[in-house]
Order: sequence, then structure tokens, then C-alpha cells
Amino acid sequence: MISKKQLIITPQDYSLLTDLYELTMSACYVGEEIADKRASFELFVRKLPENFGYLIAMGLEQGLEYLENLSFSEQQIESLQKTAIFKDATPKFWDLLASGRFTGDVYAVPEGTVIFANEPILRIEAPLWQAQLVETYLLNTINYQTLIATRAARIRDIAGKTAKLLEFGTRRAFSPQASLWAARASLAAGFDGTSNVLAALQLGEKPRGTMAHSLVMAFKGLSGSEDEAFRAFQTYFPTAPLLIDTYDTVAAATRLSQQETIGVTGVRIDSGDLVTLSQKVRSRLPKIDIFASGDLDEWEIERLQQAGASIDGYGVGTKLVTGTPVNGVYKLVEIDGIPTMKKSSSKVTYPGRKQIFRIISNGLIQQDRLSLATEEMTETETPLLQLVMKEGKRIDSPETLDVIRQRTSNSVATLPVETRKISNPHLISIKVSDAIKEAMI
Amino acid sequence: MISKKQLIITPQDYSLLTDLYELTMSACYVGEEIADKRASFELFVRKLPENFGYLIAMGLEQGLEYLENLSFSEQQIESLQKTAIFKDATPKFWDLLASGRFTGDVYAVPEGTVIFANEPILRIEAPLWQAQLVETYLLNTINYQTLIATRAARIRDIAGKTAKLLEFGTRRAFSPQASLWAARASLAAGFDGTSNVLAALQLGEKPRGTMAHSLVMAFKGLSGSEDEAFRAFQTYFPTAPLLIDTYDTVAAATRLSQQETIGVTGVRIDSGDLVTLSQKVRSRLPKIDIFASGDLDEWEIERLQQAGASIDGYGVGTKLVTGTPVNGVYKLVEIDGIPTMKKSSSKVTYPGRKQIFRIISNGLIQQDRLSLATEEMTETETPLLQLVMKEGKRIDSPETLDVIRQRTSNSVATLPVETRKISNPHLISIKVSDAIKEAMI
Repeated sequence: MISKKQLIITPQDYSLLTDLYELTMSACYVGEEIADKRASFELFVRKLPENFGYLIAMGLEQGLEYLENLSFSEQQIESLQKTAIFKDATPKFWDLLASGRFTGDVYAVPEGTVIFANEPILRIEAPLWQAQLVETYLLNTINYQTLIATRAARIRDIAGKTAKLLEFGTRRAFSPQASLWAARASLAAGFDGTSNVLAALQLGEKPRGTMAHSLVMAFKGLSGSEDEAFRAFQTYFPTAPLLIDTYDTVAAATRLSQQETIGVTGVRIDSGDLVTLSQKVRSRLPKIDIFASGDLDEWEIERLQQAGASIDGYGVGTKLVTGTPVNGVYKLVEIDGIPTMKKSSSKVTYPGRKQIFRIISNGLIQQDRLSLATEEMTETETPLLQLVMKEGKRIDSPETLDVIRQRTSNSVATLPVETRKISNPHLISIKVSDAIKEAMI
Repeated sequence: MISKKQLIITPQDYSLLTDLYELTMSACYVGEEIADKRASFELFVRKLPENFGYLIAMGLEQGLEYLENLSFSEQQIESLQKTAIFKDATPKFWDLLASGRFTGDVYAVPEGTVIFANEPILRIEAPLWQAQLVETYLLNTINYQTLIATRAARIRDIAGKTAKLLEFGTRRAFSPQASLWAARASLAAGFDGTSNVLAALQLGEKPRGTMAHSLVMAFKGLSGSEDEAFRAFQTYFPTAPLLIDTYDTVAAATRLSQQETIGVTGVRIDSGDLVTLSQKVRSRLPKIDIFASGDLDEWEIERLQQAGASIDGYGVGTKLVTGTPVNGVYKLVEIDGIPTMKKSSSKVTYPGRKQIFRIISNGLIQQDRLSLATEEMTETETPLLQLVMKEGKRIDSPETLDVIRQRTSNSVATLPVETRKISNPHLISIKVSDAIKEAMI
């Protein structure tokens, strides 16, 4: 029998939100008395997703919350013991879990910063068992939110500064929590609002929305009419955009333009030829906001713009919150002061604790140098990785969405135009320092 | 400032996990005094994802839990009131939320059943405001879990009945909760295990796993060796597969075959040419299980098999738990006894409360007839939609994963071979009843 509250995660559950091997390897480290060796792991992306010229780092905030709160309850330890998987583990492993907290240091690229392939987004320096254990969760939060933030930044970049961008993806997001993270990451990377009520309220934002076809269909079914549906909705939500494509978009717009009593402020079109329809609606309702929705993404928005569509805002859902993932990995780069590297076929890892030194001049990125963390930087270089957690304690309070949004906007502006292209962008190659190359021999 | 526990969902939060417009439309229905009109909505997929010949219905269980527990706390109502979005709503709207529960009926296709485009997976019959409000959550759970279950069933179908299939997607899943739902749906549709500890424990399963490159690298870094890493891990986990591709896969297998003291039961290969490597490893370690991993999906597994790879099990992650979504929609089909339909360009909805009558003979699906729920069925037909909730109460207890897994296997077996193909499958066209066609005129 499946328990009633199955598959709902509470904050107390997060310590078990991990791949089994993180726990078995930790138990092995304990048994072999190497669990407390200082280890450094770095989280990075080997290759950008197709047609991506950059990534926007995102998801650190949830990672830090997780690290600050990591602990194992008696009940959790018992549930692990009951699996019998750990029957040959040493008793010390259970003691460590019971008393253990995350006590390491974290270096990270601030959320909202542009990064490229092979650049560490985050580095964990901690006792080996801890650094190992936190892999799964950190990858989970940073992989997904970085994907969404990057997609949102690309859409903002294409749509232009004044377009109204609304995140409408909740129904297609991969679980309720995915919908919350998608809302956060898209707002932090340049969207204006989300339809997700819980996400908006948790983030201190106002939820946004229009109306659905079902409302129009319900009124029409009850011997009413589309106009009756508009009138009714406006009675209670006078400034909400009206959805006008349930039956005949242009006819609906024409009727709205003739009804002087209704002060319509905006309309949404969710189907049909958005180019022609938006132009026809504009000619009838010149002063209102026209929103478009329906399987939109950065490519479709670009196409609409180039084809002369007359659209003020976009509701973006499915194609923002789902799709090809960002495949971040988390690799051991140093153990007990010794740089390590993996040499599996075509999957080489750069050894050692690293830093990214970025040179920006004339407002544009001139160079990113991947160096060892111990290397000196030149006067024109700025380090991207910053100490954000020291011995398990955060250095700073969480940033507001506004701060991250502004950083995203500024950071995208430092990219060459060719790298901002949404198809076949020019990939910026990072310079790998001589010290790293020597360490690889 | 962002609150500390932001973006973690507790069961009490679910009533706000909705698009804003579900709430505004409900308020409009209340104001217009149509909130209690009986409404029927159906959830279905207009078009299967590319290369999909069928879907496996999944996610109903979480939907029913949600419906059973739906309620609004005082605090939630206050938080909505504070947004000022509802300032023109009638006081009765707040009364309804405060006292409201889901009191409707639910008809659904059992989890693990094969379905096709335009076939309702679920129908809600409830007072209009309730049926409207639950749209977002129901779509969220059914869209994602149906995607994962279908992918898992396809992978099981290609890999064969005896292959060991492990779900390894947690680090790439779109949020922690997505990883839990992915684990559930893949286990329910034919996978043997998941690496996700929390998911496995919540589902009453044993988590599964091997070891990571970091363990090998850590031992090697600490003046040890790859063999030392193998020995150490086997000391505590004697039956766990060893990961042998960190440096030289074939050399590692050769050494393992020569060390008679180590009783290795399995190995995992995560990189390189899996065809050649698996054959070479098999020749050296003929009696052990060889697991493959690394960006696998049904197409890659088929390719490996056709190329003669010698693999006993597959760890499938990223490409199982992410990707192109299932785009289910939720449409009003009847209000107050009157069938409704939408006529937006290219998005017509079949009107009326519907049933799917399936004919299976000689073990294969012969026909699916989409009919009105009120139509009679013939002797050879079986109805797919069943009453699963009556006046807000579940009819039956939750099903076990085993029951759903068996149903999935049986249901896939009723498909013609051409429809089970993973590329360009033959799409089964459903028969639309005359009564529906008449209702559309």
C-alpha cells in the first residue's frame, strides 16, 4: 500500500533526496577513514545545450538553503538501516550521519551571471563525505534553474526591454515544485510576472493572468454569449485582459471596439495566425495591450516580430519550463591538497580548484581565463567565483529577485551580439591557464 | 527579502498551486451566480509527442490525493486578499473558498493504461467553480507522470523483459519533486529500481545504485589506486556493481578478472564505445552483470542491441526524466447539461461528456470508439473511464506500483507491433461516434 502523503516533500526530507551511491560512498569513506579528508568538487557544464551561446547561473539560493539545513533525523537513519543495504557499514557511519551537518566552504558565481562551458558555477570545499553527499541536490537545483534562467534571458533579449513577459508554464512544468522554481528563475532572469499564485506569493510578487476559454464557453453554454462572458469578467476584474479567440478573434475585437461602455485594457490571443490576427485586432483596438500565447519560445517570438506582428506581451509556458536540460556535472578536483582528474574517453576534467578571471572592457567580455584558484589575477581581471558560505554558514543574506534580475540584464549586455543569437550563436572559447595545462600532464 | 523556506511546498500549500485565472474565473462565476452549475471538464492530449504511438496514463493517484485534501486556510485567503486583485469580487467568493471542498465526481482511465490522442484520461463533474479551480494541478501531475510512464514503457519494451532498468535521473530532474514523480512513474511503468533514496523509501522500494567516478578519483588521489577503490567499496557493499571506466575500462576489467579474491557481481560502464567495451568486458568477466549508463534512451538502447553490445542492465537518467512534454489540456465539455465546444482555429474540442469504448480481440486492440458517456456499448466493448471518486470521496484505495506495472505491461501488449515502434510508429485512429459528430453540427 502506498502511503497517503507519498511524494510530497517537506523540508525535513531533503537529506534523503539523494542518489543512493552518495550514501554508500560516504559509508565507504568512513570505513576507510578518509571521510574527513578535505575535498573540493566543482559543478560545471561540459557543453552548452544546442543553440545556446551562454548560460545564466541560477539555483544557488536553494542550494545554500539546503546546505544550511542538512541533517539526518533518527527516523531517517532508521529507514536507511532497514533497507539492509548498509549492513556491512561501520557504526561510525551512523554516528556521523546523526551528528553531521554541512561544515564546508562554498564558492559560487552569483546568480544572474553569464557563464560558459567548463566554467565552475560552484565549488564545494568540505570533508569528503559531506562534499560527496550534497552532489545530487546541488545538481538538481542548479541544472534546472540555470536552464530556465537562460531561456528567460534569451526570451527577454529577443522580445526587447519593453515587452511584457509572463510565465504561464505551471500546468506543463515537471511537478508542482518545478513550477515554483521555473517561476523564480524566469522572474530573476527578466520576466515581469507569473501566473503561479503560490510562486508569486512566496516570492513577494503579484500573480498575473487573464482568463481561459472555459469561462467564455461556460457563459455561451448557459444561453449567454461571448460578450456576456467579457462583461461578467470585467465586472470583477476590470483591468484583466480578455481572451478573445474562443470563436472568432477579429469579430470579438470588432465588437469590443464598438462597446464604448467597456473599458478594455488588454486582450489575449491564444491560437491562429498571430501575425495577421494581432494586426487586425490592433486596427480595431489601437490603444490596448495585445498579449499572445500558445507554444511560444524565443524562436517563435523572433519570427512573429520579423513578420510584423503587433504584440505587446507574451505568455510563455510549455517551451520555457520543459525541454532539453542543462547537463551540469559535479566532479572531484582536489583531495587532501592533491589535484585530481578523470580520464574517461572524451570526458576529461580539468584538475585542481579553479577560478574564472573575466576581463570586461568597453562593456563587453574580452576574455574568460580558467585558472587555478591560487593563481594571481591581473589588474583588468575580475574573479567570478566568490565565497558565499564559510564553515557551513552563509556569508550574505539571500538576494532579492530585483538584484538578480538587474545582474542578469547587465551580464547579458556584456556579451557580443553574435553570442546572444538564439540560433547558431558564436561560442566564446575560454582561455585555460598554463598552470592548469601543466597540472594535466 | 526572500523568505527562508521559499519554494518548498508543503501539502497545505497545494490549494494555491494554481494559475491565477482559475481563481479569478471562480470569483466571476460566484459573482454571476453560476458557480454551482454542474460542469464537466475533460483532460486529454490533442496530439501525441513526436515518435510516440501511444501514451501510458499516469499521475491520477496524486490528482486524487489533491482533490481529497483541497481546502483554503484563513491565512491563504488573507494572502489572496492582500494582493488587491480580488477587490471587486463578492464576499461570497471568500465564503466559498473558506468552506469549500472538492465535492465532485471523477471518472478516469486507470494508471498504466494505453491511451491515444483525443481520448479523455480523466473527467471532472463538479460545481463549475471547483471544476475550474483544479485544472492547473491536475494537468501538472498527469502531464508529467504520463510522459515519464510512456518513456519508461517504451524503454522496457525495447530493452526486453529481462533487462535490468534503473532510473538514475534525480540530478537532472526538473526539481526534487520532479525526481520523485519520475521515480514513481518509471517504476509503475516497468523499471526495476531507482537511485533516488527518498522516492524509493516513500514507495516502499529498495533504492539502487553503483558508485561514482569521484570515489575512484579520491582513492587514486590519496596515493591509492583504482583497485584500492574497488577493494574498499566492496568491503562495505560486496554486491554493488563497480564503476570501471574512470581510467581504462578494459584494463580495469582484466585486473578484476585476475583477482580471484574479489567476488565482483557487476560492473558499470558510463562512457566510451559501449558496444566494444561491453564485449571486451564480457570476455574477461563472463558471469557478471554489465550495466551501461550515460545519456541513454530507447533509441540508444535499440542501437546498442542491434550493434551487438553485451549489456544486462541500463541506468537511464537525463533523457528519461526531461525533454519534450506531454501537452495535455483540460476543456469544458458540458455545463448545466449543455454540451460545449471550442472553435478556435485548429483547436476544436469534441463536445459532451465522453467515454472510450475499447474492443480487444485476439489480445490486440481492434478499435477505440470515442462516444458520449450516455451511449450504449456493444458486447465486445469495454469502457476505459471508470468512476474513481464520488462526491469528493475516493471509491478505492490507492493501487500498488505492482498492480500498475502489471497493467502497463498487459496494456502495451495489446498494441500492434507497428504502434509500439519507437520511431515513426503507426498511429491508431480512434472512431468518433455518430452521436458526437451530430453534437458538433
